[in-house]
Amino acid sequence: MTGSTAHEARTVAAKAVLKRQSIETPSWAYGNSGTRFKVFAQAGVPRTPREKLDDAAQVHAFTGAAPTVALHIPWDRVEGGPEGYAKLAAYAEERGVKLGAVNSNVFQDDDYKLGSVTNPDPAVRRKAVGHLLECVDIMDATGSRDLKLWFSDGTNYPGQDDLRDRQDRLAEALRTVYARLGDDQRMVLEYKLFEPAFYATDVPDWGTSYAHCLKLGEKAQVCVDTGHHAPGTNIEFIVAFLLREGRLGAFDFNSRFYADDDLMVGAADPFQLFRILYEVRRGGGLEADSGIAFMLDQCHNIEAKIPAIIRSVMNVQEATAKALLIDAEALAAAQREGDVLAANGVLMDAYNTDVRPLLEEVREELGLDPDPMGAYRRSGWQERIVKDRVGGVQAGWGA
Amino acid sequence: MTGSTAHEARTVAAKAVLKRQSIETPSWAYGNSGTRFKVFAQAGVPRTPREKLDDAAQVHAFTGAAPTVALHIPWDRVEGGPEGYAKLAAYAEERGVKLGAVNSNVFQDDDYKLGSVTNPDPAVRRKAVGHLLECVDIMDATGSRDLKLWFSDGTNYPGQDDLRDRQDRLAEALRTVYARLGDDQRMVLEYKLFEPAFYATDVPDWGTSYAHCLKLGEKAQVCVDTGHHAPGTNIEFIVAFLLREGRLGAFDFNSRFYADDDLMVGAADPFQLFRILYEVRRGGGLEADSGIAFMLDQCHNIEAKIPAIIRSVMNVQEATAKALLIDAEALAAAQREGDVLAANGVLMDAYNTDVRPLLEEVREELGLDPDPMGAYRRSGWQERIVKDRVGGVQAGWGA
Amino acid sequence: MTGSTAHEARTVAAKAVLKRQSIETPSWAYGNSGTRFKVFAQAGVPRTPREKLDDAAQVHAFTGAAPTVALHIPWDRVEGGPEGYAKLAAYAEERGVKLGAVNSNVFQDDDYKLGSVTNPDPAVRRKAVGHLLECVDIMDATGSRDLKLWFSDGTNYPGQDDLRDRQDRLAEALRTVYARLGDDQRMVLEYKLFEPAFYATDVPDWGTSYAHCLKLGEKAQVCVDTGHHAPGTNIEFIVAFLLREGRLGAFDFNSRFYADDDLMVGAADPFQLFRILYEVRRGGGLEADSGIAFMLDQCHNIEAKIPAIIRSVMNVQEATAKALLIDAEALAAAQREGDVLAANGVLMDAYNTDVRPLLEEVREELGLDPDPMGAYRRSGWQERIVKDRVGGVQAGWGA
Amino acid sequence: MTGSTAHEARTVAAKAVLKRQSIETPSWAYGNSGTRFKVFAQAGVPRTPREKLDDAAQVHAFTGAAPTVALHIPWDRVEGGPEGYAKLAAYAEERGVKLGAVNSNVFQDDDYKLGSVTNPDPAVRRKAVGHLLECVDIMDATGSRDLKLWFSDGTNYPGQDDLRDRQDRLAEALRTVYARLGDDQRMVLEYKLFEPAFYATDVPDWGTSYAHCLKLGEKAQVCVDTGHHAPGTNIEFIVAFLLREGRLGAFDFNSRFYADDDLMVGAADPFQLFRILYEVRRGGGLEADSGIAFMLDQCHNIEAKIPAIIRSVMNVQEATAKALLIDAEALAAAQREGDVLAANGVLMDAYNTDVRPLLEEVREELGLDPDPMGAYRRSGWQERIVKDRVGGVQAGWGA
Repeated sequence: MTGSTAHEARTVAAKAVLKRQSIETPSWAYGNSGTRFKVFAQAGVPRTPREKLDDAAQVHAFTGAAPTVALHIPWDRVEGGPEGYAKLAAYAEERGVKLGAVNSNVFQDDDYKLGSVTNPDPAVRRKAVGHLLECVDIMDATGSRDLKLWFSDGTNYPGQDDLRDRQDRLAEALRTVYARLGDDQRMVLEYKLFEPAFYATDVPDWGTSYAHCLKLGEKAQVCVDTGHHAPGTNIEFIVAFLLREGRLGAFDFNSRFYADDDLMVGAADPFQLFRILYEVRRGGGLEADSGIAFMLDQCHNIEAKIPAIIRSVMNVQEATAKALLIDAEALAAAQREGDVLAANGVLMDAYNTDVRPLLEEVREELGLDPDPMGAYRRSGWQERIVKDRVGGVQAGWGA
Repeated sequence: MTGSTAHEARTVAAKAVLKRQSIETPSWAYGNSGTRFKVFAQAGVPRTPREKLDDAAQVHAFTGAAPTVALHIPWDRVEGGPEGYAKLAAYAEERGVKLGAVNSNVFQDDDYKLGSVTNPDPAVRRKAVGHLLECVDIMDATGSRDLKLWFSDGTNYPGQDDLRDRQDRLAEALRTVYARLGDDQRMVLEYKLFEPAFYATDVPDWGTSYAHCLKLGEKAQVCVDTGHHAPGTNIEFIVAFLLREGRLGAFDFNSRFYADDDLMVGAADPFQLFRILYEVRRGGGLEADSGIAFMLDQCHNIEAKIPAIIRSVMNVQEATAKALLIDAEALAAAQREGDVLAANGVLMDAYNTDVRPLLEEVREELGLDPDPMGAYRRSGWQERIVKDRVGGVQAGWGA
Repeated sequence: MTGSTAHEARTVAAKAVLKRQSIETPSWAYGNSGTRFKVFAQAGVPRTPREKLDDAAQVHAFTGAAPTVALHIPWDRVEGGPEGYAKLAAYAEERGVKLGAVNSNVFQDDDYKLGSVTNPDPAVRRKAVGHLLECVDIMDATGSRDLKLWFSDGTNYPGQDDLRDRQDRLAEALRTVYARLGDDQRMVLEYKLFEPAFYATDVPDWGTSYAHCLKLGEKAQVCVDTGHHAPGTNIEFIVAFLLREGRLGAFDFNSRFYADDDLMVGAADPFQLFRILYEVRRGGGLEADSGIAFMLDQCHNIEAKIPAIIRSVMNVQEATAKALLIDAEALAAAQREGDVLAANGVLMDAYNTDVRPLLEEVREELGLDPDPMGAYRRSGWQERIVKDRVGGVQAGWGA
Repeated sequence: MTGSTAHEARTVAAKAVLKRQSIETPSWAYGNSGTRFKVFAQAGVPRTPREKLDDAAQVHAFTGAAPTVALHIPWDRVEGGPEGYAKLAAYAEERGVKLGAVNSNVFQDDDYKLGSVTNPDPAVRRKAVGHLLECVDIMDATGSRDLKLWFSDGTNYPGQDDLRDRQDRLAEALRTVYARLGDDQRMVLEYKLFEPAFYATDVPDWGTSYAHCLKLGEKAQVCVDTGHHAPGTNIEFIVAFLLREGRLGAFDFNSRFYADDDLMVGAADPFQLFRILYEVRRGGGLEADSGIAFMLDQCHNIEAKIPAIIRSVMNVQEATAKALLIDAEALAAAQREGDVLAANGVLMDAYNTDVRPLLEEVREELGLDPDPMGAYRRSGWQERIVKDRVGGVQAGWGA
């Protein structure tokens, strides 16, 4: 193949992958969020799970790449038991989206002050496990595959609690929940360096999550949140390692300059996002059956929410497109020869390519407007929700 | 002098300093606080500025070292104009404490979403400056010397606003407020690397604060919050440098393992606190007329508030005592000779000393219980406020 | 103007700036370098200052953008006193380049173990100052404008030396050297967080450098090395601030994932480089008379040196081109309106543009090959130096 | 038991542990070391492995706690094959110490520029594995139990090599070496975030080391170097976790303010060292048969080497003593009750205790001088080696 034919072949292959790429958006990103200093409310924000789904459907309508929506329980709790959730799922499908992962929340009740599943008090632990089991019940009703577990559990002061005992308690809780999972269900265990725990977090890094997953079994997988690492951590290495081990279950995408800033994915370090997606590709994670859940987990504290989520989906698409354009053969050849500059050059050549025209083509071939941001703006949806959603309690980080 | 006579002399001198050491406690540390995930309310928390002063008076009663209380406006706003604040000051004095620095708050109104004094909208800037001037009015009424300025202002995304224009706006606001200060009033300008701004903070480091202070004049001083630096920053260097320049106005003490965790001072790295206090001593900052305000600024999210503040005061006292016990002559001699290990050894000898007996003596000589934590526990105050402070709205990070 | 006419106008203006852009390369980057673990020697590396200039001339020949070469004394010391340096300058000009900044080196003599200009021993300080004055003598001979000062001075252990005394000694040394500068000469004072000092570095941050420069006068300017900051530091903020203050004298460009890794500029975080260059543009630093020295300071430990430097020059050019393509009017408008996403979008639109075709045009219009990497590879220079430069002592980080 | 009886019991128990505590010193710490900028040679430094053992024997003679010495191959290579090493071991025993772990070195040959066991070139990998096998041969001769593996392997630039292939190569090399281990031999696999690799290190964190060890078998254990983590990492958590998993094989003790500074252990953050040793105690690591190797790995670039190592041994002893004095029952009770301040207070009470008198007693009961630093100084050894060790080539980081 000549160079340009090969490039064309890569472009064709890339388009096929991009057309089926699916990025899950989180229901809570449509609601209000903020920092400990202040939550700035925005006009038009949803008041109910259904309104969140309405907004998520807009994101999918304009990008064609966001067909599922993650729930957060209890933030998205609905009445009516299993049927209530089945109805919610049906509502979503009417809008053109499906319900995705169920996110458990064991950090906002008063008795979780010193932890949930790792709390020294067995009664609190029981309550927390109960909530997790309830989440699996909901998954049964919604047809969701993944239970996403993030524990804020940890300690603020040395000595506050016993680090080892807390691991024992965590392991026990995970075993109980794992045993409850159906054949087609999984748990994805998130890790986070710190916040809200400020001394020791009980699942602080990928190694801890991985070790627990190993003991649980195949249905336990690691979730990588791109904002949850110590400064300097090479995230794409972790991605490559977990893929090699068959233990990468999900991503929570977002970006950060400092800590868990939860900015739009790709906003702080687009080159890092590209490197991550290259390792995903390299490890087979862009294959149709990879099983990896690509989710957003972001806070749009000061920017308009729906457009920010559209932009985030586009950022993931652009990074994916660049990763797909890397000339794998040329890269491997330069690597084999130990030609540092040439190998780096192959990678950078793809990164430096403007892939926006390619993505416009992809969208047009899918029957979409090539410009999702503009199309959303022109659609009048924003004006409509600002006008319509008056009164009631805006959704936010609370039940 | 023999070694032991010299040690005795240092001990005597240390006790004199410790007896007049004064650590200001912040009114807001007595109220509820938390993270963006959850505020865990505590029983007995004050509902009014007066109740905060009641609690602060307890801290002073048991430590003898916390005679002043910093206010936060609008959190501590009272009715009645200047007279209202004068009454509040009188109330404090009746309880045995005085009002200290006034902390401005220009980060919790809806129109501060994109900044206060650096906001692109001149109307918002005017409002923010108006608030700062109101704070000086309150200082006139309370007799406070220091206006503490912390701006959450900054941006979350590259390009969001013009970094340089924001400096111009900041400089203008500071000039206006500076001009309003009375002869015996100062402003202390705090800096912070990030949070709640996640891309660029307008006063992110000591250099920025220092540069603005220089242009304003002698009444503008830098405030060092020990939790506001990038990882790896040598804070005691900054302290030494600012003291050499005559520009260290105040401390906001707290501690952190990660970011601005706002843990009890001395809890995360007691050796760092000791090194900081050694540089304070070295630079004359422990002299009676140093003008430095030693304040706490902490969040007791999960621990009992009043005892945590007592512990914090004691931690500062212990670090100060150790810093005072350093044999300055032996240190200087080893430094002159370039004896790295000996010089480090002199410092570590003081650090490794158990100064708690010395502080017990200090307390006893002041007529206090040598064990402030125990004395508070035995006093019954905690049980009393839990019982009495029922109903109403607990104080927290809100007006 | 229509959008496309405006874009065309920006392109024309960008090309004009890019054609005169000048990036200084450091003589030492052509020699061997490594880590404390190992220096991997490369075939063909220069043995003499003249051979370094030969290589630097190649970089300029193929990029058209690297017309000057920084010296490091004593690494580039030549015999013959002032005349020797004048001859070196003449040699450079014959090859098509000029000598640039003189970098002082006061960190490799045995008596600098505990510091140079801040050493507790006055004799060592005198020696160090003597070296700095010698560097100014060399500048007189070479016609160099800038004396670049980087001090490795600092301490490894708390207590090792007096932080404040060291500032006094530093100030005195700087005053002496400043007084020796000619009318058209400057000093640029570099800062660095750590390494080789591991506790306290005497000029650790921009604030320290800035404060010393302020006291010295207009001819003292801050040098920003892009690898010398604490994790999370917003470098473009510092750049914007120093430009606003008229105190940004020079850049040492390189990149890093961790510490002072000294990788090729733009290799670790090309988006950061773009943001820095945008602030340079915004602050007038790309104007012809800005006075800012744009230098590289890198270590090519494992990659081929000359191509790595060519790539680095190209990376700075690409970042500059993108910064110049930002639609300043649209950006300002979005900022004024507080439209966070639109303002960020204007910036990202330029960043996401592939500017390589534009730079190919620039090169062709300058009579250069549009592909500097390929042209160098095809030139045969690398094979020639590998064959010719046999025997002798390869240049490295030593006299 | 009364409080004071319980305290006495803890003291007795602590003394028993302290009397048998054993800290291995590294042969290379007695030689010259430095940074990439400069190695400052010290007078009296050993020229041969035997002279290093002579110095190590001094450290043990004065502390009673450093009975073994780690070797580094090839830095400590001796002639004579297995017999040569057996003689070296005999020499050590004559001096009162034993040979400890064997440290492999696959980072200083020219062909390791792009890696050793993960190098893309199979010939280089074979060579590297050959060296590791040679180290096991040496262990057979010296009777050493542990092969310490630290790989500098990694990449400097994105794309330079394939992250996943490198893991495959690493796994293969480890399997080969593991298969060669005798029944009583182990491998301990060190991890390090960065340096000398500046983009991706092949064993960057404990998770990677742990995952490889798991697959290898029981004789593969993780080695924790206290200076090898990202900023903010909670090292004691890792220690607790690995102990719970039965996979903590060894410590490389040192301290750091920034990166892998290799300062004296306990010098930068004595509270962290205490917390680590508390988790060691909590996890059974201070039991006589724990199997954990407590080693130093430090660089004494500017301080006198032997006294620095004595000080380091003492720092570990002091941290251990404090960890042993923690009232475990009171701690557990406070933790159970969720009394954050009380639990933290129990820990801090031990930390704030001056344990130097206790260690003086321990030494006296062992027949040692209570003051190892003073005793060494008075011994005349330093003067003797400075006088005797003239000529030859001082040992350093080279063969």
